[in-house]
Amino acid sequence: MLKNAFYAQSGGVTAVINASACGVIETARANRDKIGTVYAGKNGIIGALKEELIDTSLESSETIAALKHTPGGAFGSCRYKLKSLQHNRTEYERLIEVFKAHNIGYFFYNGGGDSADTCLKVSELSHSMGYPIHAVHIPKTVDNDLPITDNCPGFGSVAKYIAIATMEASLDIVSMCASSTKIFILETMGRHAGWIAAAGGLAGKASDEPPHIILFPEIAFDEEAFLARVDASVKQCGYCVIVASEGARYANGEFLADSGTTDVFGHKQLGGLAPTLAQLIQSKLGYKHHWAVADYLQRSARHIASGVDVEQAYAVGKAAVELALAGKNSVMPAITRLPGAEYAWHITEAPLNQVANVEKLMPREFISEDGFGITQAARDYLEPLIAGENYPPYFNGLPTYTRIKGQLVRPKTNRAFDVN
Amino acid sequence: MLKNAFYAQSGGVTAVINASACGVIETARANRDKIGTVYAGKNGIIGALKEELIDTSLESSETIAALKHTPGGAFGSCRYKLKSLQHNRTEYERLIEVFKAHNIGYFFYNGGGDSADTCLKVSELSHSMGYPIHAVHIPKTVDNDLPITDNCPGFGSVAKYIAIATMEASLDIVSMCASSTKIFILETMGRHAGWIAAAGGLAGKASDEPPHIILFPEIAFDEEAFLARVDASVKQCGYCVIVASEGARYANGEFLADSGTTDVFGHKQLGGLAPTLAQLIQSKLGYKHHWAVADYLQRSARHIASGVDVEQAYAVGKAAVELALAGKNSVMPAITRLPGAEYAWHITEAPLNQVANVEKLMPREFISEDGFGITQAARDYLEPLIAGENYPPYFNGLPTYTRIKGQLVRPKTNRAFDVN
Repeated sequence: MLKNAFYAQSGGVTAVINASACGVIETARANRDKIGTVYAGKNGIIGALKEELIDTSLESSETIAALKHTPGGAFGSCRYKLKSLQHNRTEYERLIEVFKAHNIGYFFYNGGGDSADTCLKVSELSHSMGYPIHAVHIPKTVDNDLPITDNCPGFGSVAKYIAIATMEASLDIVSMCASSTKIFILETMGRHAGWIAAAGGLAGKASDEPPHIILFPEIAFDEEAFLARVDASVKQCGYCVIVASEGARYANGEFLADSGTTDVFGHKQLGGLAPTLAQLIQSKLGYKHHWAVADYLQRSARHIASGVDVEQAYAVGKAAVELALAGKNSVMPAITRLPGAEYAWHITEAPLNQVANVEKLMPREFISEDGFGITQAARDYLEPLIAGENYPPYFNGLPTYTRIKGQLVRPKTNRAFDVN
Repeated sequence: MLKNAFYAQSGGVTAVINASACGVIETARANRDKIGTVYAGKNGIIGALKEELIDTSLESSETIAALKHTPGGAFGSCRYKLKSLQHNRTEYERLIEVFKAHNIGYFFYNGGGDSADTCLKVSELSHSMGYPIHAVHIPKTVDNDLPITDNCPGFGSVAKYIAIATMEASLDIVSMCASSTKIFILETMGRHAGWIAAAGGLAGKASDEPPHIILFPEIAFDEEAFLARVDASVKQCGYCVIVASEGARYANGEFLADSGTTDVFGHKQLGGLAPTLAQLIQSKLGYKHHWAVADYLQRSARHIASGVDVEQAYAVGKAAVELALAGKNSVMPAITRLPGAEYAWHITEAPLNQVANVEKLMPREFISEDGFGITQAARDYLEPLIAGENYPPYFNGLPTYTRIKGQLVRPKTNRAFDVN
């Protein structure tokens, strides 16, 4: 009897995570002789724990194909990190119980660093429990902070969004600055890594072109140097455009805008950096300002997704199934950039124990010496990732995003499991 | 000797104001036998006062054509309202002096309500000063608050942006709400009129589809009713999406988020409504939230401009020249919706004295009875305005927006004029 597969989306969603789901499901369907049904966790791994499994075989091929152009997490995602084996072995045992009940032999976990860790542990524990599961992690994170893979699906689209937003807002403020607003601040996501903010740098080429300042979490915030640069930009160009990562912090590690709350992973929940910076500039330099916080808009902006990103997101989903069918385990399909002037890439495999819990920050050589901009090396890295437009279809002026039926499979374990 | 024309952009720019400029300049070029050179004010009307006139005849036809897909104000705009005739007659006299020096017989002023008023006064004063100018106002405002015209160029694109942003962010939060964020707030522009926030309502059709709440400036904010609705949405749908106009206010007229500063027109400068609402919900209901402030991004988002909007913005620019050449004065080309099930429109002419200083708010019948949503009448009005996609060309992943040379004409009045 063919083994079935379990697929789940984890953590913050992206504009293209469903393209990976599409890659998984279409590739599984193309291999009906080797793999059974793909069950998707309703709301991610929580769906496995609660035995809420969506039967994707009931979704039409049109719906599955349309996932490729639909943002958000079509099956539901979650911020839920399994505890360590020592602290909550019962959660892992519950996963194996559910997988066993539904004859699941393949575990595809679509997420960032935390989920790579979970994926690895499921693989290890399933072996020790005598019900071996082929566990493959599918990379996804707008933060672009996974190791080994050259870049992470989801990042290229948010990078394109931020680059275009910076470019467009700069054309706005430059029109107005002679008599009105002098400062524009765009706050981007990126709690620990400055990749997303860096993409704003693609909006301008020359040093006097906006953005004039980028704030990275990797560079300690120096208030004096920052204000001096703001003032110099306004005096030289008439205005100043700032792209600031939400993770911008002081040398002591304290975030500039610390809302004081934490999410379930124990990460601090940030927000409000842009108004904080605006207030600082207003009080110290007196310039009129505008600020924007893109928040979810940036990571859900499927309407302006990067063509390369969509292609890669699909490719890692497809490769995950192919790796599993080739008998691989505890691996992640990684995007590997090929040498040469023209951008080219292929999929390689990365061992999960080298992926889990490793965070890839911006290398120092990608950040200009003064800490406020990106270097040519960063441009060479970033530019291919935002290339290509992949527009969704439209009807009556709006994208026609799809919605799954989401029919659940009848539970088989006959017990409830409490998810805290 | 042919009379020249003066064109200026006024107030906050839009994604399509340059399409109107393109319409003016291309139509003037097509009528070289009737109209001389189009001079554009550098930074709007300030350029006329300071005699900084951009010679558009030096711009290539490719550059002028590319204005149609370039956001921002290519010639520079300004927030500068001429004072009343009683208070600063010298400003109007200076305009006439500059226009006379450059043989300008046509004044095209591309802006909102304030500039319609200026346009009217220039026409009146020029006549009384014996140098009659044909003054035509070209409508432009994302706020969509001009009277007579069915809608304002600039609005359709911001409406499309907000509808899509609401749709995409809603797909994001619905993926996450089971275990994480329950509230998403999108703050939109719209100081006095709720048109932009209303467009967020197009993202969902059924009453349980997001957005669950829209806050309009036209409806007094009722904290108790608002919180009850938020709570009901979370309990019923699992989450709550709120689209809030920056102009949301209490029954006494006080803005919810009053930053306390004012712009040069004496209008209060707003911002920070979204975090204010988030804080309110957090403290009263305890739900985890995310919020976005689109600010300039919404009005400069040429990458997702409405096709209808681009077409209409061009059409009013073209019509302005045609009206002037037909000898019309103190008029504004207005967009008139034709009767019938299929959306159709044509350009009519509106007398400026009926346009200036009149603000068109959302009619009450466009807002649902409870004050938190839009009606079918509003949908019927809004939907055609966001129809059609008009993508700019791209190179290396970014839109190829154009930049003018902006060569100034040699001054002729031989005196400086101080602009305060």
